[in-house]
Amino acid sequence: MGMVGGGKDAFIGAIHRIAANMDGLIELSCGALSINPEIAKESGKELFLPEDRTYLTFEEMIKKESQMPADKRIDFITIVTPNFAHYAPAAMALDNGFNVVVEKPMTFTLQEAKDLKKKLEESGLTLCLTHTYSGFPMVKQARDMVRNGDLGKIRKIIVEYNQGWLSRLSEREGNAQASWRTDPKKSGKAGAMGDIGTHAAHLAEYISGLQITKMCADLNILVEGRALDDDGNVLLRFNDKVPGVLMASQVAAGEENNLKIRIYGENGGLEWAEQEPNTLWVKWLDKPMQVYRAGANAAGASSFEIKNCRTPAGHPEGYLEAFANIYRNFAHTLMAKIEGTEPTKEMLDFPGIEDGVRGMAFIENVVASGNSTEKWTDYKI
Amino acid sequence: MGMVGGGKDAFIGAIHRIAANMDGLIELSCGALSINPEIAKESGKELFLPEDRTYLTFEEMIKKESQMPADKRIDFITIVTPNFAHYAPAAMALDNGFNVVVEKPMTFTLQEAKDLKKKLEESGLTLCLTHTYSGFPMVKQARDMVRNGDLGKIRKIIVEYNQGWLSRLSEREGNAQASWRTDPKKSGKAGAMGDIGTHAAHLAEYISGLQITKMCADLNILVEGRALDDDGNVLLRFNDKVPGVLMASQVAAGEENNLKIRIYGENGGLEWAEQEPNTLWVKWLDKPMQVYRAGANAAGASSFEIKNCRTPAGHPEGYLEAFANIYRNFAHTLMAKIEGTEPTKEMLDFPGIEDGVRGMAFIENVVASGNSTEKWTDYKI
Amino acid sequence: MGMVGGGKDAFIGAIHRIAANMDGLIELSCGALSINPEIAKESGKELFLPEDRTYLTFEEMIKKESQMPADKRIDFITIVTPNFAHYAPAAMALDNGFNVVVEKPMTFTLQEAKDLKKKLEESGLTLCLTHTYSGFPMVKQARDMVRNGDLGKIRKIIVEYNQGWLSRLSEREGNAQASWRTDPKKSGKAGAMGDIGTHAAHLAEYISGLQITKMCADLNILVEGRALDDDGNVLLRFNDKVPGVLMASQVAAGEENNLKIRIYGENGGLEWAEQEPNTLWVKWLDKPMQVYRAGANAAGASSFEIKNCRTPAGHPEGYLEAFANIYRNFAHTLMAKIEGTEPTKEMLDFPGIEDGVRGMAFIENVVASGNSTEKWTDYKI
Amino acid sequence: MGMVGGGKDAFIGAIHRIAANMDGLIELSCGALSINPEIAKESGKELFLPEDRTYLTFEEMIKKESQMPADKRIDFITIVTPNFAHYAPAAMALDNGFNVVVEKPMTFTLQEAKDLKKKLEESGLTLCLTHTYSGFPMVKQARDMVRNGDLGKIRKIIVEYNQGWLSRLSEREGNAQASWRTDPKKSGKAGAMGDIGTHAAHLAEYISGLQITKMCADLNILVEGRALDDDGNVLLRFNDKVPGVLMASQVAAGEENNLKIRIYGENGGLEWAEQEPNTLWVKWLDKPMQVYRAGANAAGASSFEIKNCRTPAGHPEGYLEAFANIYRNFAHTLMAKIEGTEPTKEMLDFPGIEDGVRGMAFIENVVASGNSTEKWTDYKI
Repeated sequence: MGMVGGGKDAFIGAIHRIAANMDGLIELSCGALSINPEIAKESGKELFLPEDRTYLTFEEMIKKESQMPADKRIDFITIVTPNFAHYAPAAMALDNGFNVVVEKPMTFTLQEAKDLKKKLEESGLTLCLTHTYSGFPMVKQARDMVRNGDLGKIRKIIVEYNQGWLSRLSEREGNAQASWRTDPKKSGKAGAMGDIGTHAAHLAEYISGLQITKMCADLNILVEGRALDDDGNVLLRFNDKVPGVLMASQVAAGEENNLKIRIYGENGGLEWAEQEPNTLWVKWLDKPMQVYRAGANAAGASSFEIKNCRTPAGHPEGYLEAFANIYRNFAHTLMAKIEGTEPTKEMLDFPGIEDGVRGMAFIENVVASGNSTEKWTDYKI
Repeated sequence: MGMVGGGKDAFIGAIHRIAANMDGLIELSCGALSINPEIAKESGKELFLPEDRTYLTFEEMIKKESQMPADKRIDFITIVTPNFAHYAPAAMALDNGFNVVVEKPMTFTLQEAKDLKKKLEESGLTLCLTHTYSGFPMVKQARDMVRNGDLGKIRKIIVEYNQGWLSRLSEREGNAQASWRTDPKKSGKAGAMGDIGTHAAHLAEYISGLQITKMCADLNILVEGRALDDDGNVLLRFNDKVPGVLMASQVAAGEENNLKIRIYGENGGLEWAEQEPNTLWVKWLDKPMQVYRAGANAAGASSFEIKNCRTPAGHPEGYLEAFANIYRNFAHTLMAKIEGTEPTKEMLDFPGIEDGVRGMAFIENVVASGNSTEKWTDYKI
Repeated sequence: MGMVGGGKDAFIGAIHRIAANMDGLIELSCGALSINPEIAKESGKELFLPEDRTYLTFEEMIKKESQMPADKRIDFITIVTPNFAHYAPAAMALDNGFNVVVEKPMTFTLQEAKDLKKKLEESGLTLCLTHTYSGFPMVKQARDMVRNGDLGKIRKIIVEYNQGWLSRLSEREGNAQASWRTDPKKSGKAGAMGDIGTHAAHLAEYISGLQITKMCADLNILVEGRALDDDGNVLLRFNDKVPGVLMASQVAAGEENNLKIRIYGENGGLEWAEQEPNTLWVKWLDKPMQVYRAGANAAGASSFEIKNCRTPAGHPEGYLEAFANIYRNFAHTLMAKIEGTEPTKEMLDFPGIEDGVRGMAFIENVVASGNSTEKWTDYKI
Repeated sequence: MGMVGGGKDAFIGAIHRIAANMDGLIELSCGALSINPEIAKESGKELFLPEDRTYLTFEEMIKKESQMPADKRIDFITIVTPNFAHYAPAAMALDNGFNVVVEKPMTFTLQEAKDLKKKLEESGLTLCLTHTYSGFPMVKQARDMVRNGDLGKIRKIIVEYNQGWLSRLSEREGNAQASWRTDPKKSGKAGAMGDIGTHAAHLAEYISGLQITKMCADLNILVEGRALDDDGNVLLRFNDKVPGVLMASQVAAGEENNLKIRIYGENGGLEWAEQEPNTLWVKWLDKPMQVYRAGANAAGASSFEIKNCRTPAGHPEGYLEAFANIYRNFAHTLMAKIEGTEPTKEMLDFPGIEDGVRGMAFIENVVASGNSTEKWTDYKI
C-alpha cells in the first residue's frame, strides 16, 4: 500500500493506517504523505518508511512505483486527501495499473466520478470507497435480515447523522479539519451533506437495498459566516415509493457521531446506531423485541456478520474494526484476483465505484433540491 | 366532574378517570357515558354513579346539572368522545356555565376551535386540553432549561411520534380505536397527523417556546385501503427561521409510543422520550453530558418540575401521573377561581384554548402542505 | 379505608392514598393520622375527612368504627406508621374484625409477626403487606416465565437495592424519614437491611419461587455515628442449594432507588430494575436476547402481567401503579369475600401474612449472620 | 516479537497479534506457535513468518533468537499458552535477556509468580501482563477521577464478571477453550475465579488504588461434572476496611462478557461496563449524573484517557484497542529503555509483575476462603 496524504498533521490518514495494519495482510510500503515536503519527509520517518519510498508528490510515487518489479511494488494506493484532491491521484493510479482505495465522497464532481468509473471498466482494476459504516457487523446483519424478508416489505426509512463539532466557527480558529470541509473549493458543492449526509444516504441504500429516487431538501447554514450547509433535513422517496427522512447536522451541539438508522417493514422495524454498534434492535409487530449482538459466535448471526467479526460477543469491536473490515475484504479480493480465483461475495462486500458515483449524485441532487422551490426533485445520475 | 363518553367499551375515558381520581381532588359525579343507552347505564353502575345522575345524552346531563344547587352540581365536564363529537358538548357546557376538559384534537374543524375560543373569552370560564405529554415533569424541566437560556439560542428541533399499532388494517377487524381514528367523518381531515402529530407539534412548541411558521409536509397512506394519512414527515420552520423536523407514524411496526424530542441550541442539546420519561439527557458542547432525573428531590430540579412530581427520584412516575398533573393543575386553578384568588403560574400550567386552536390550525396547515406541490406552506391560523 | 399514621408531615401515607384512590374502588373514610393532635386534625381537614371521623388515636378509631353500622363503617385499616408502631393497631384491628393493610417490615419483632399470623388464622380476616415491587407488571411477567420453566432450572440469583440518600448523617439535620429509620427503637434490629433489604429478599423469593435457607452477611455502618447498618452484602443459599447474592445500601452515593434483580437458569437469564420497570430483559443462551415490555396489549404478556396494567405498551406505568395494583388486588379479594365468592388467584396476588413473617425472619437472621464469625447461618423462622 | 502458542487452533493468540499490529510499532518476527509441529508450521506460513524463524518449541526459539545479532533478534516474547505453560517460557526468556508479555493469570502457582518477580528484579527486564480491561480509556478516566478525589473517600466497591459460555458441559463436546480452562492440571487451582475473577479483582484494585485485605468466598460448581468452580461470589474487605463484593460466573446463561464495576465514595459513585466501554457514568450525591465519554477530544478527559484513545468521541473503540493500548504502552516503555531515556508514567501504564503476583495470590486466597468455614480469610501473599 502507498498512501497519498495522511501526513502527521492529518486525521484520517492515521485511521486508514490502523485499519490497514490490523489484520496483518497489508503493509504500508511508500507514501506521498503531504504536499509540504518537510512534513512528507518527517511523516515517512515516523512511519518507518524507507527514504527512497518517501515521495514528495503522488505523481512521483506512482511513476516510480510503476517502474519497480512486480514483487516489490505496491498493489494499491490509498487516497486520504481532501475531496478536491481525490480525482487526480486516483485517475493516474488507475492509468498506471494500480488499484485504489479512496476516501468519500469519491471525487469533487459527479463528472469526475463517472470518469473514474469508465477507467475502471476499461482497466479491470478495483476501487474501494471507505464508507466506513457499511463495515460494521451489525449493519451487515441488518442488511441480511432485510434481504431475507424478515421485516416484510419495507415501508419507511429514517436515517440521521448528527454531529456538533462545527457548532462554532472553528474553521476560523485554526481547526484544519473544519477549515477544508467548510471551504467550497476543497470540499465541493455541499458541506454537511457531502461530509456526512453521503454516509447516511449510503447506509440507507446499503441496508435496505433500495435507492433514492426523489428528494425534498432543506439545507441550512446555522452558524453565520459559512458558505456551505452545516445542517440539512431531506424528505426522501425510495424505489416503490417508500418514504424516508434523512437528517444530517454538524451543528447539533453536544452530539458526537450520532449516526442512526431505522427501517420499518410490514412485520417490524430495526434500529442501529454507530455509538452502540454491536447491538441491533429488532422490534416486532407481534412478538417481543429482539436484540441481536455482534460476535462471531452470536446467536442468530448471519454469514456476513460472522465474516466481519474478530472477537466473541461481548468484547466490543468499534469504528476501527469496521474500517479494517473494508480493507480486509478489499485485500482478500485483490489476493483472489492475483491468485486468479473468483472473489467470494463476502470478499466483494466493500463499497466501490457504484457507491462512489451515487454518492456524488446524491450531493448534486440534494443541493439542487435545496435550491428549488418545488417540493420534489427527481434524483438524476 | 361529569363525563361525556368513556363508557365501558372505550379506552381513553378510563385513563381520564384514573388521572382525575389520583390526587383526591376530583370526584366523578355524573356522566353521559355512551350514546348507547344500555352501555351508558351499565357503565354508570360499574362506576358507582347514582342512577339519577347517569344520563343518556350530554344535553340531558348539562341541562339537569345546571339546574342543581351550586354546592351539588359539577364544576366541569370532561369530553372523551371521538373528535367529531367534541364541539357540541363543549359549546353547550360553556353556554351553561360549566368549565370544560376536552381530549385533543380539540374540535373537528379549525372554525369550531375559534368558536370555542370566543365563548371562553365571553364567559371567563376555563378550558383544559389534555395534551398529556406536557404534563411530564421532565418536559417541564426541559422547558425551564430552554427558557432559562441554558442551551443558548435554539437552532434546531426534531420531534417524532412513532407507533406501530395501525400496521395492519385493524379498523376492518373490529378494533374500535382504529375504526373511528381512520374515518374522516369522525376523525377529521387528518389521520396520524391529527391523532399524534398534534401531540408532537404541541410538545415542540411547549418546550421550545417557539411557534411553527411554515411547513413542508409529506403525508402518506402506507397501508392500502385507508382514507387518511397513517404516516407523515414534515419539514418545519419555527420563529426566527429555526428549522425543524416532525415525524409521525402509526405504521412504524414494532414501535409502541415512541414520542421523542431533541432540541439543539448554541451550547448543547436536550433529549426526552416518553418511553423513559423520568430522564432528561442534556448533551453539552463543552462539558460532559448530564442526566437530569425526575423527582421532587432531584438534583437541579426546576420549580415546575418539582410541582409535578409525587415520588422521590428513582420511583418512576409515568403516563397516568402526567395526565393527572394536567387534571391537578386544572383543579387547583378552578379552586383558586372559586375561592376568588389568583391562580399561580404553576396552577395555570396546563394546555388550554390557545393550544387547542393551534392544534386545529396545525391539522389544517399540514394537510394543505401535504397536498401542495410547493415546498413551503405558510402556517395560517 | 381508615388510615393510621400518614399525616401531613409524613411521606408514605400520601403514596398509600394515591394508590388507594387510583382505581376508584377504595375511599378514605376516616383516619388517626398523627399522634400529634394538631397535625391529626389539620391533616383530616386537608383530606376532606368529616370531623367526626378524624380520630386522635388508632384505639379511638377502631373502637368507634367497629360500633358503626356495617354499611357505613370501614372495611379495613391501613397502617403507615414507623415499624415499631405497626403491631398494636394491626392486632387491635384484627381483634375487632377489620382487615389490615400494613407497611413493611410488618412488625418490630418476629414474635409480633407470628402473633399476627395466629390472629389471622383464627379470624379468617385478610392482611396485605405493601411490598410494592411485587406489584409491577414485569415482575409478574418474570415470575410467570420462571414458573413456566422458560429459564430451566434456576442456578443463580443476584438482587440488589442501592440508595444514596443516607450518605450523610441527615438524621441529625432534621430529616424525619432518616431519623426514625436509623433509630433502633423505632426501626428495629436492622437499618438498611430492614428498610430495603427486606424488599430485595421478598422480590427474589417472589419471582423465583425459591426460599432463602442460609445466609452469610456482612453488615456495615459506613457513615460514622450510626447505630444500625446502612449497608450490607449477603451471600445466600436458596432451596436446592441455589446460590445468590443480596446487596443493599443506603449510602451508595448517587443512587436513587436502584433495585435490580437478575435470575439465571440453565437456558438463560432475566433482568429487571425498578428504575426502568416496564422492560424485562431476557437473555437466552442460544438465541438473541428478548425485551418484554409492559402493557395490557404487549406481545408475550402473561395473564398476571395483563391484569396488572392500565395502559397500552409504551405509555409507562410506574411506582404508584405498582402500589395501586396491590391495593386493587386486595380490594377485589375483599369484595369477593363480601359477596361470598372465591377470590381468583389473580385477586389473591398481593403480599400477605406469610411474606410478613418471612420478612421479619429475614431481619432476625441477617443480623444474626452479620454478628457471627461462622460463614453460614441457617435461616430460622 | 516472538510468540509462544497462538497457533491456528487457538483463540487469544490472534487477539494478541491484532493488538500488537494495530499501531505499527511491533512486528511478529518469529514464533513457536504450537506444540503440534504440523500446526506450528502451517500457522507460521499463514502468518507470513520466514521458515527459519518458525520454531517448534519455545526452547528452540529462545535459544536461536538469543544467538542472533541485536538488530535482528526480537525484543520480547509473548506467551499465549494455557496457564500451566506460562512459567517455563517466561523464565527462560528472562534468563536469556528477553522481555516478556504474558497472558493472565501470570503463572500456574503463586510460587512461580514470586520466582518470576525475582528474575525481573535481578535482570532489569520488563514484564507485561495482559489484564486487558485496564487498557480501556474510560477505566483510566475512572482511575484518574478516583485518584483526584472527585468521589471523596471510597466507601464501597462492587465488581462482577458474568459470562454464560460454560452453561453446558461444552468441555466434553470438543470446545478447546472450555477444555483446558476446566482442567485443574492446565488451569490451576481455580476455574472461573482464575479465568475471570482475576480480571475483576485487578480492575477493582487498578481503579480504586485500594488492595484486597480479606475475603469471604462462596465458590460453586453449578454445572455437574466439573472439577473447578464455574461460579463464585466473594465478600471483600479492602484497605481502610472498605467493603466490597466480587461476583464471577461462567454459567450465567445469556451473558456475554458482562464485566462491570461500581465504586461509591462520599460524594458520588461511578460505573463502567465493558460492553459499553466508551461511557463512564458518574452519579453525584448533590448534582445531576454526568456521562463521560471516550475520545481524545472528549469533554473532561484526563491525560491518561487521552493517551489511550485513537478516535474522536463517538467513534467507538473496543476490546482490541484496549488490548492494543497495553501493547503500545509496553512498546513505548521498551523503546524508551532502548534509547536510554526514562519512560513516562503514561508509558508505564500497563499491568506488570506486581499485578501478576497479586493475581496469583488472589487465586490462592479465594480458593482457601472458599474451602474455609470461617467467615473471613486474610489475604496472604
